[in-house]
Amino acid sequence: MGNSFGKLFRITTFGESHGKALGVIIEGCPAGLMIDEAQIIKEMQRRKPGQSKITTQRKEEDQIQILSGVFEGKTTGTPIGIVIPNSDQKSKDYSHIADKFRPSHADFTYFAKYGIRDYRGGGRSSARETAARVAAGAIAKQLLNHYGVSIQAYVSQVGDLALTKNYKEMDLAKAEENIVRCPDPETAEEMVTLIDSVRKNRDTIGGIVTCVIQNTPAGIGEPVFDRLHAELGKAMLSINAVKGFEYGSGFDGVKMRGSEHNDSFVQKEGETRTTTNHSGGIQGGISNGEDIYFNVAFKPVATIMQDQQSVNEDGERVTVSGKGRHDPCVVPRAVPIVEAMAALVIVDYILLAKSNKL
Amino acid sequence: MGNSFGKLFRITTFGESHGKALGVIIEGCPAGLMIDEAQIIKEMQRRKPGQSKITTQRKEEDQIQILSGVFEGKTTGTPIGIVIPNSDQKSKDYSHIADKFRPSHADFTYFAKYGIRDYRGGGRSSARETAARVAAGAIAKQLLNHYGVSIQAYVSQVGDLALTKNYKEMDLAKAEENIVRCPDPETAEEMVTLIDSVRKNRDTIGGIVTCVIQNTPAGIGEPVFDRLHAELGKAMLSINAVKGFEYGSGFDGVKMRGSEHNDSFVQKEGETRTTTNHSGGIQGGISNGEDIYFNVAFKPVATIMQDQQSVNEDGERVTVSGKGRHDPCVVPRAVPIVEAMAALVIVDYILLAKSNKL
Amino acid sequence: MGNSFGKLFRITTFGESHGKALGVIIEGCPAGLMIDEAQIIKEMQRRKPGQSKITTQRKEEDQIQILSGVFEGKTTGTPIGIVIPNSDQKSKDYSHIADKFRPSHADFTYFAKYGIRDYRGGGRSSARETAARVAAGAIAKQLLNHYGVSIQAYVSQVGDLALTKNYKEMDLAKAEENIVRCPDPETAEEMVTLIDSVRKNRDTIGGIVTCVIQNTPAGIGEPVFDRLHAELGKAMLSINAVKGFEYGSGFDGVKMRGSEHNDSFVQKEGETRTTTNHSGGIQGGISNGEDIYFNVAFKPVATIMQDQQSVNEDGERVTVSGKGRHDPCVVPRAVPIVEAMAALVIVDYILLAKSNKL
Amino acid sequence: MGNSFGKLFRITTFGESHGKALGVIIEGCPAGLMIDEAQIIKEMQRRKPGQSKITTQRKEEDQIQILSGVFEGKTTGTPIGIVIPNSDQKSKDYSHIADKFRPSHADFTYFAKYGIRDYRGGGRSSARETAARVAAGAIAKQLLNHYGVSIQAYVSQVGDLALTKNYKEMDLAKAEENIVRCPDPETAEEMVTLIDSVRKNRDTIGGIVTCVIQNTPAGIGEPVFDRLHAELGKAMLSINAVKGFEYGSGFDGVKMRGSEHNDSFVQKEGETRTTTNHSGGIQGGISNGEDIYFNVAFKPVATIMQDQQSVNEDGERVTVSGKGRHDPCVVPRAVPIVEAMAALVIVDYILLAKSNKL
Repeated sequence: MGNSFGKLFRITTFGESHGKALGVIIEGCPAGLMIDEAQIIKEMQRRKPGQSKITTQRKEEDQIQILSGVFEGKTTGTPIGIVIPNSDQKSKDYSHIADKFRPSHADFTYFAKYGIRDYRGGGRSSARETAARVAAGAIAKQLLNHYGVSIQAYVSQVGDLALTKNYKEMDLAKAEENIVRCPDPETAEEMVTLIDSVRKNRDTIGGIVTCVIQNTPAGIGEPVFDRLHAELGKAMLSINAVKGFEYGSGFDGVKMRGSEHNDSFVQKEGETRTTTNHSGGIQGGISNGEDIYFNVAFKPVATIMQDQQSVNEDGERVTVSGKGRHDPCVVPRAVPIVEAMAALVIVDYILLAKSNKL
Repeated sequence: MGNSFGKLFRITTFGESHGKALGVIIEGCPAGLMIDEAQIIKEMQRRKPGQSKITTQRKEEDQIQILSGVFEGKTTGTPIGIVIPNSDQKSKDYSHIADKFRPSHADFTYFAKYGIRDYRGGGRSSARETAARVAAGAIAKQLLNHYGVSIQAYVSQVGDLALTKNYKEMDLAKAEENIVRCPDPETAEEMVTLIDSVRKNRDTIGGIVTCVIQNTPAGIGEPVFDRLHAELGKAMLSINAVKGFEYGSGFDGVKMRGSEHNDSFVQKEGETRTTTNHSGGIQGGISNGEDIYFNVAFKPVATIMQDQQSVNEDGERVTVSGKGRHDPCVVPRAVPIVEAMAALVIVDYILLAKSNKL
Repeated sequence: MGNSFGKLFRITTFGESHGKALGVIIEGCPAGLMIDEAQIIKEMQRRKPGQSKITTQRKEEDQIQILSGVFEGKTTGTPIGIVIPNSDQKSKDYSHIADKFRPSHADFTYFAKYGIRDYRGGGRSSARETAARVAAGAIAKQLLNHYGVSIQAYVSQVGDLALTKNYKEMDLAKAEENIVRCPDPETAEEMVTLIDSVRKNRDTIGGIVTCVIQNTPAGIGEPVFDRLHAELGKAMLSINAVKGFEYGSGFDGVKMRGSEHNDSFVQKEGETRTTTNHSGGIQGGISNGEDIYFNVAFKPVATIMQDQQSVNEDGERVTVSGKGRHDPCVVPRAVPIVEAMAALVIVDYILLAKSNKL
Repeated sequence: MGNSFGKLFRITTFGESHGKALGVIIEGCPAGLMIDEAQIIKEMQRRKPGQSKITTQRKEEDQIQILSGVFEGKTTGTPIGIVIPNSDQKSKDYSHIADKFRPSHADFTYFAKYGIRDYRGGGRSSARETAARVAAGAIAKQLLNHYGVSIQAYVSQVGDLALTKNYKEMDLAKAEENIVRCPDPETAEEMVTLIDSVRKNRDTIGGIVTCVIQNTPAGIGEPVFDRLHAELGKAMLSINAVKGFEYGSGFDGVKMRGSEHNDSFVQKEGETRTTTNHSGGIQGGISNGEDIYFNVAFKPVATIMQDQQSVNEDGERVTVSGKGRHDPCVVPRAVPIVEAMAALVIVDYILLAKSNKL
């Protein structure tokens, strides 16, 4: 269970970090959508390892093969099957870690759940699985583009270094102009310096990704269990290393009075809009046409380049040594993943809304 | 869509605040479980309006009728149908608000989605719907009790008044000894005073509910989209007025280094445990046997006893007057709802894990 | 599991024959549909026991209570909750059959599955559960009416007494003019005589219901697992006592050559139509706009007014005596159930098709 | 929608006949099952084209690549991704049929549904999709083997040439000893002769596949919509060219009296068994431990080697010429597909039953 996401626009992923390939089946994409493969590749490159000095130096090409569902450049309405071969699948010697539980990894919980594990990597819990999501999300984005919806995420905090501007005070497109993906150039520079110093200390650090969705039509969502923000929250919490989610006023809204927090309705250019947007574009689980925005908290990556104490499958004390090439901070590469998951949620609810009319 | 929650232990709710009744169908409860109806009633009373001076003074009896699925005091394995009549369903005159959009309510988004609304109340977005969840959650709790799992939630913050102790430093059972449901008597008293003053100002205020789940067996959860914390997050975000969710180290974890955040494994009494628990009992989406704990942020209630500017269905400026009896702060009554949703998630994953073995 | 049917227009039922009530939640009915409650009652009366000398003489009123989802005569888009009280729920003495397995009933399989059973009746396997389906189907039919689709089922065979005319050779509306629901008056009379003689022999007999769906738009359905006829087949096979399903040419099609079976396409009044219709209106799992027709085989009812040998829960030989008031032949009352399930399938796929477009 | 089958043991397929590859993701297979790849290949060969003179002479190798979910020969509990490349994917000239609707194919309905089609083949409606099902079914069979359940299907009728023996009167294993897969050697020979003569006439013919499932534990299934036979029926009706499904007494049961049709319970070797088995091993939708058996009716293949009249996308009259290499009768190759789908249903319900216990 749990390898699918979405109701009508639905993806199902498979594959581990050390198997032959990852892949994803995308169902429910309406027929007739032009698919721009270059755009998919571009999204894959935003996520891929080795893209800058503050990401892991591991090289993975993340080449996608579209096996079905696209004919003469257009979707056919049938499932789009995509495979991403694992190029870096070496026959290394894993015997030294095969039975050890790495701290704050899924090694122990996997063993408790399955009684067996592919000790060569994190299995399905590996962040490598998100490559399949980004490929699917790139197609969701092209469909969203058809509906006029746009999504932009960016890094708003690294450790305790936080952006002081909100998303309306910056040109979000600038996030793509630096390696940390923060739209404020000065803060970006500080973040890079911070991550680099953490990396040199053989340590890791957490961060926050903020995401803004614009032009979602009003009336998208569901009022009870599948509230639009509940599904967005689940989508974000399903990304590796995420520890929290808040939308609109979020945790800060707790401190406000109702009289201050309520968003007044006004009429602007023939449309019902709100003066403020503490609601984050969603009221009662349904979009109101304002910007949807939310924050996603990422913990520091568990793999550190230091020796750590742990136990093995037999309960014996062991030392886990930090080896390999890992990200000192996950948020720069998490930006396209957050966008991909957001795109999957919004597009799914747009299709759902179509079925909801007489 | 979106009226069901859960995969194997699944609930489906129906009913609006101003219809004849609410109800819930509970599927997947194994046969042979003794049902203690008094326990269900007790949970309903923890949620019901009018229970203290800091909740709404509206009276609703919230009586449950079990229509099926229980025979001679035990579950039969078939769906448990429960109906909760709406006793307070008066034929009031609603014409003065019938076409107005109350600020930060779901009135406008409902209208955008459905093109029609039951103007007598919030429809399905009304917090009244959570009565059905609490009834179902009470049965989930009885099943969890069979598996040895316990859940306790409490109010940890009101406005900017936050508990300074963490859950291990208090006797959580004391949360039920005061009307605000905070386990620290002194802070509780301050919270009551704060809420009462807000109420007198005809305003509302937000708060945080913390929830602790103990004795979940290791190995419960899924590694990808349906991570245990992702489903818990969705469950919480589906509760009215919730703006944020964080588990384990949460948003604070962002500021930590990996070397500080990682939870070391040790062997205790023949079991693999962790020394710290920044993971919040979940690693890679799967439980590790430690306590699961999380925070849920609630915004201030949108209904305030003040006049507010808004527009109506025709886009004309109107004044919405605050009338009726509403909660100045939702968190005391949210405690049993948070527990109910948590119980539904955990019990569902426990049943799922059973099907996962050879 | 298995108490829900449908993807977007989805029903979930609860309730046993001997509990307090049955009920159904109908999700996904678009907002704004006028609901004619008299039509629902009329469908309930077509299904209800005691309607003629060839049905069971048991009296059940099958009164429906709509608890939610309808406001001022129109659907609101939220779940429609319906409860049907069990009026005939006497505190009879069941001790003489409490631990006996009635032949060809679900008593033994229930016991094997649940380890417990409500010995007062068939539990969820009781045909009484179909009352909830008929209520839901009556609403589905009103929605289908909005889309111009019509459904008519009728009895085409009782025992080995089969109609010799196909559906195009009769006025199907006449099926409602006699108690056996066969549109050919002469055959109807013979069927009534046959059923009556079986009843006098304290026995039961099987039959076939044929169903015709007209004006389904072309392009409704799915090409792989959820083929339109596969879902229709599942819907029919989920009705009590059903042993077989065939559509279009059905089992007779086996004997044909491809050159004879293929339906040629022609152009009629600007539309692509077929000259013959062995396909039964469905090709590759998707409707082609022609009439959809199928047959549903019902076995003789298992409850007979005769003594039968069996065993009890302890494996001891026992005699099961035929008592009570039961149907000698189920097909006259099955006609509205077949229509209800067909309506649920078609309406679900129509909504699904809406979400399928750019 | 509709590319997945199963609840807990769930498969999702993708791919068209003329794309780069087909594939399937298998979810829910418990960890630790030994996978015998040779067995999968053997099942693929039972289905593959070109295996005898009475099947299509088209050559497809149907080689499978297991990309994930199996490590060191055992399942890991994570999704098993399988890809089957389309080797015979030539760049033929399709312009002569690109806009024509072949009679009784899905060309027209596809066009009505999607507004676009991959004119090189039947898209997802192509029988080629069943290769993915057979691969998944081969794994389901290995899991069923672990639970002691066995499945054997065979051809029981071709055109009007029907086996006169029931399944208990033959050695079913002999079905694999002849090219038509009929366990009675003499009838098999007659069937081969019949199919061969039909083929020489450039025509096609229908047939029936019978399937027997043995040693299913009692208590597997669900009592309402997801009755075991309803899901089996849907599974079978989802196979290309299937027009009907009946289980146990089936359509013949219609003609019986209840006193004759009822299966008496008796005690045999400490187990509750039935003397006859008109129930087909299923009562009230739940298995009773007896043999489950059913018949599946296949129409004659729509592709015939003759000219046929039809229309094109513009509604103009056209001639569709029979070309290529196609099966004169589909049932010999349908045998492993019927078994695969049956295996998927049974294994899913066995896993479901595990979650159903306290």
